[in-house]
Amino acid sequence: MRLMEEKIRQEGKVLSGGILKVGNFLNQQIDTRFLRRIGQEIAGLYRQEGVTKVLTIEASGIAIAAAAAMELDVPMVFAKKHKTSNVDGEIYSSTVHSFTHNTDYHIVVSRDYLLPEDRVLLVDDFLANGHALRGLIDLIRQAGAELAGVAAAIEKGFQGGGDALRAEGIRVESLAVIDRMDENGIVFRP
Amino acid sequence: MRLMEEKIRQEGKVLSGGILKVGNFLNQQIDTRFLRRIGQEIAGLYRQEGVTKVLTIEASGIAIAAAAAMELDVPMVFAKKHKTSNVDGEIYSSTVHSFTHNTDYHIVVSRDYLLPEDRVLLVDDFLANGHALRGLIDLIRQAGAELAGVAAAIEKGFQGGGDALRAEGIRVESLAVIDRMDENGIVFRP
Repeated sequence: MRLMEEKIRQEGKVLSGGILKVGNFLNQQIDTRFLRRIGQEIAGLYRQEGVTKVLTIEASGIAIAAAAAMELDVPMVFAKKHKTSNVDGEIYSSTVHSFTHNTDYHIVVSRDYLLPEDRVLLVDDFLANGHALRGLIDLIRQAGAELAGVAAAIEKGFQGGGDALRAEGIRVESLAVIDRMDENGIVFRP
Repeated sequence: MRLMEEKIRQEGKVLSGGILKVGNFLNQQIDTRFLRRIGQEIAGLYRQEGVTKVLTIEASGIAIAAAAAMELDVPMVFAKKHKTSNVDGEIYSSTVHSFTHNTDYHIVVSRDYLLPEDRVLLVDDFLANGHALRGLIDLIRQAGAELAGVAAAIEKGFQGGGDALRAEGIRVESLAVIDRMDENGIVFRP
């Protein structure tokens, strides 16, 4: 998606420590006209895949997942992050390691919202090391549902999470893949 | 909005302790066709108000705020919840008391995303005691921006937060106002 690459070039900021700041259009502040186009783009990629549900994780994935789900005309579900793993019989739960905060957290979703007959598209704003997505994939497997694929707005290709998922046969589509970035600029994957 | 009342009657569940469960269409799982209609309804109510930005709070308000902002064709901003108040010069911050968890939390938004020239519509899924909304109003005042009004998907009228805001001259529009609810059913405000 050239659109996303252009937007990142125009409005994204590379900070030290491998952080790409897109808070002014994709996260915290959201350019809703752009959001609608992202939703259409993701829906276009997965329209033939029989998706019955879009799954994401709070909080920054919600707007993008909602936009994609609106275009696909399916429900959107978001997993919640919990500090503690208070598993009861009514939820699916998985553990995710956060390198940013060097801590584990738990993601949970009610069993009512992931069903064995679901074909689930995972949507998130960033795909970096892929740990959060692997947690979501674990929830899908616990539910006995099927994974249709992954759609990320921005993939940090140099962190390898997306390519590792692809190597396992999972369809991963990112609207922009960054192979390198530093103070000199951003190099997108062709 | 009859639509919201019907949806609550059909799919909402009243739990003990004054909790209305709408997780299967408005929160955690979101009915995106319904979400689009909510967005249109909110936009219709505020279209003449010169709104430049929609503001909400993570996480459950994001989808509704995004849907409304898409219809109004303005950016959407969400305040983040923090456990600690690590105020620096780059953010506006306010403190909110949560009765549910009997604790204070802090809401923050980058100064870049709330500007003195903004006319802000607050959107949230629930309006109960109104404390979270008052925190958001505080952020708007700190930014020197103007409050256009409040739109809530569901107002728990019996908790009084919405009426208190109205008494202060703030425009508050809720798509359904619940005046009473218990195991016998839900009574909507006419």
